[in-house]
Amino acid sequence: MKFSIERADLLKAVSQAQSVVERRNTIPILANVLMSADGSDVSFKATDLDIEVIDKTAAQVERAGGTTVNAVLFHEIVRKLPDGALVQVEEDQTQGRLQVRAGRSHFQLATLGREDFPVMATSDYDANFSCPAPVLRRLFDKTRFAISTEETRYYLNGVYMHVAEGDDGRKLRCVATDGHRLARVDAPLPEGLEDMPGVIVPRKTVGELRKLLDDDDAVIAVSVSETKIRFATPQITLTSKVIDGTFPDYARVIPMGNTRKLEVDAADFAKAVDRVATVSSERSRAVKLALDEDRLTLSVNSPDSGNAEEELAVAYGDERLEIGFNAKYLQEIAGQVDRENAVFMFNNAGDPTLMREGDDQSAIYVVMPMRV
Amino acid sequence: MKFSIERADLLKAVSQAQSVVERRNTIPILANVLMSADGSDVSFKATDLDIEVIDKTAAQVERAGGTTVNAVLFHEIVRKLPDGALVQVEEDQTQGRLQVRAGRSHFQLATLGREDFPVMATSDYDANFSCPAPVLRRLFDKTRFAISTEETRYYLNGVYMHVAEGDDGRKLRCVATDGHRLARVDAPLPEGLEDMPGVIVPRKTVGELRKLLDDDDAVIAVSVSETKIRFATPQITLTSKVIDGTFPDYARVIPMGNTRKLEVDAADFAKAVDRVATVSSERSRAVKLALDEDRLTLSVNSPDSGNAEEELAVAYGDERLEIGFNAKYLQEIAGQVDRENAVFMFNNAGDPTLMREGDDQSAIYVVMPMRV
Repeated sequence: MKFSIERADLLKAVSQAQSVVERRNTIPILANVLMSADGSDVSFKATDLDIEVIDKTAAQVERAGGTTVNAVLFHEIVRKLPDGALVQVEEDQTQGRLQVRAGRSHFQLATLGREDFPVMATSDYDANFSCPAPVLRRLFDKTRFAISTEETRYYLNGVYMHVAEGDDGRKLRCVATDGHRLARVDAPLPEGLEDMPGVIVPRKTVGELRKLLDDDDAVIAVSVSETKIRFATPQITLTSKVIDGTFPDYARVIPMGNTRKLEVDAADFAKAVDRVATVSSERSRAVKLALDEDRLTLSVNSPDSGNAEEELAVAYGDERLEIGFNAKYLQEIAGQVDRENAVFMFNNAGDPTLMREGDDQSAIYVVMPMRV
Repeated sequence: MKFSIERADLLKAVSQAQSVVERRNTIPILANVLMSADGSDVSFKATDLDIEVIDKTAAQVERAGGTTVNAVLFHEIVRKLPDGALVQVEEDQTQGRLQVRAGRSHFQLATLGREDFPVMATSDYDANFSCPAPVLRRLFDKTRFAISTEETRYYLNGVYMHVAEGDDGRKLRCVATDGHRLARVDAPLPEGLEDMPGVIVPRKTVGELRKLLDDDDAVIAVSVSETKIRFATPQITLTSKVIDGTFPDYARVIPMGNTRKLEVDAADFAKAVDRVATVSSERSRAVKLALDEDRLTLSVNSPDSGNAEEELAVAYGDERLEIGFNAKYLQEIAGQVDRENAVFMFNNAGDPTLMREGDDQSAIYVVMPMRV
C-alpha cells in the first residue's frame, strides 16, 4: 500500500475513526485503525466490536493494499504535522512498518496485519430510509440528555427510535428516560419508511453519530434491523449494534391529563433555577416552585449554607401549588427549548409534570417531582 | 454592615480573593471571605494561613461593619447574577445571616463572626521597591515552569528572588529549578532597592501574583522581609509567607564554559520535538539530538510504537554530537523564547546544556541531558 494525501483530508478521516477506539483494550488490534487504499480512495476503519466506523476519502493511490496501526498514535502524528503538508503513507511489508513522511518528518510505525482486524457480521436490514441531518440532529439532541447511566437498567442506556402512532398520523420517534425524566421527540415519517423494528441506539453510538450531523445540507441514509443500525453519508458509514432489550412502555408515564398550565421564558427560568440552586448542598439539589396568580417563586433552603429565593413573572391562572424538583433536571429540560416559551403542565405535588415548547406537541418532556 | 455595588465590580473583587481559599478546609472559617465596609470602600479578604489577599473596591456604603461568608458560594452567586445588576449586601446580625439582593433574587447566607477570622502577623519589611507589572511578569513567567513539585525538596517549591551581581552590575534575579532544569532571569535593579534578603516565593503565591500582573501599566509595590513578601496595587494586597529554607547554590550548575553553539528557530524546534516525541512511550520521553554541519536530526525510538525522525536546518559549525533530553523539558524551555532564535550551548553528551535567546544574557536556561 502506498498513497499520498493532504494533511487536512487525512486528519478529518482519521479523527472520526479514532474516536470510536476505546482507550483501554485487552485485544491489541482494537487499538488500531485499518487503512485500505484502492482505486482513488483510502478508507479508515475502526471498531470497538459494538460500533464500526468507516471513513473514506480521496487520495493519490500509488499501490493498493492495507494495514493497521495504532489509531490514537497515528491521529496524534497527523494532527501535529504542519497545516498544508502533503503526507506520504507507505507500507513496508518486509519490516512490518508503516512509513509516514511529510516534509522533513519521517515516522515508522508498528503495524498489525489487516487479516486480524475484526469484521462486523453483515446484516440484512429491515428498513432503509433517508433523513436530512437536521431532523436526526433534533431527534437525538433533544433526547440524549435523558439517557440513563445506570448499567443495571441497560435497556435505558440509549435512545429508543421507532415508528409511533401520533395524533395526526405516524411519526419517527425518539424516546429516552432514566426513570426521573423522559424526553419524547417526533419527526415526520421519512418518505418510503413504512415500518421498522424499534431499536435502542446506545449512548456511545448517539455520540459518534452526532459528528455526522453537523452539516445542515447532509442527507443521512439510515438502515435498521432488529440487531443493528447504520447511518451513512457518502464519506462515512457508522454501523452499531443496538441494545438487546425491551424499552419500557413509556406512554403510560406521560401525564396527558395535567391541567395546571404555567408559561415562562425558558432562558430566564433556567438562569433563575441555576441561581437559587447555588446554595443547595451537593447531595440534594432540590428547588421548590411556588405558583400563584401569574407569579412563580423559586426557593432553596439549605441547612448549611442558607437559603435563596427568586421571583419570576409568569403566566399562571390556576390555584396555588407548591412542588419540588431536582434543579439539574429542570435546567436540562428548560435547555431544550429553542423558541417560544416553556409550557409546564402540572397536576399535583406528587405527580409527574409535563413540559413542552409553546403549543408544539412534537417534543415533550416529563419530569418527576421530589419532596421538598 | 450594608452596602450596594455594581455586580461587575463585586465579581472582580471577590474572584481574586476566593481563589486563595483552599477547597478542603478543616478550619471552617478558612473557607470564608471576610468582607468589611467602611467609608466608601468594601474590602474582601481571604487566606489559607500562608497567603492573604485583600481586594478593595468602591461601593455605596450605608452602614459600616463586616462579616464572613463562604467564599466559593458567595463568588458563585455573584457570578450567576445578571450582568449590570446592582447588588445590595446587608448583614442581619440578629439572624446571623448575610442578605444579598439583586433584582428579584434574594439570598440569605450563613455567616461566621469576623472576630474569628485569622489575622496574619504584621511584619517589618527590610526592603521596599516599586516594579512595573511587565517586569515582574517576565521574571516569574519565565522561571515558574522549572519549580519543583517534589515536596521533600521543599526549598525548590518556589522561585528564588534575590539581588545578584551580574556581569554589568547588580540585578533583581529570579531562579527556579527542579534539579533537571533551571531557569535564571534577570531584571534591572529597581530604583531605591539597595539590598534585600533573598526569598523563595512559593508556587501558589506565584500563581496568585500572576493575576495582579496582567495590566501593562500597573506598578507593583513590593515589600520583602526574611519571612514574608508583599505585592500591592492600589486595589489588591497579596501577602505571603516565603519558604523557610535555603535555596541551593545554583551558580555552580550553570555551565558557562560550553562552546558548541547551535542556533535554531525556537518555534520550529519545539514543534519538531513535539512531533517526534509522539511515538515515545509514556514513561520515557527521550529525544535524541544529532548535530552535524548545519543540520539537526531529532529522533525517537520506541520499542512498542516505532520510531520517528525529523531534520531541521540550523546554524551549527562544531564537530558531530549526539545528546539526549527529556522532550517535555526541551519544549518548555523553547517555549520561553519570545523573539530571536534559541541558542543552545553544548559541551558533551553527559554535561548540562545551556540555552538562551539570541545573545540576551538576561534569561538563561539549563537542562540536564539523559542517556538515549
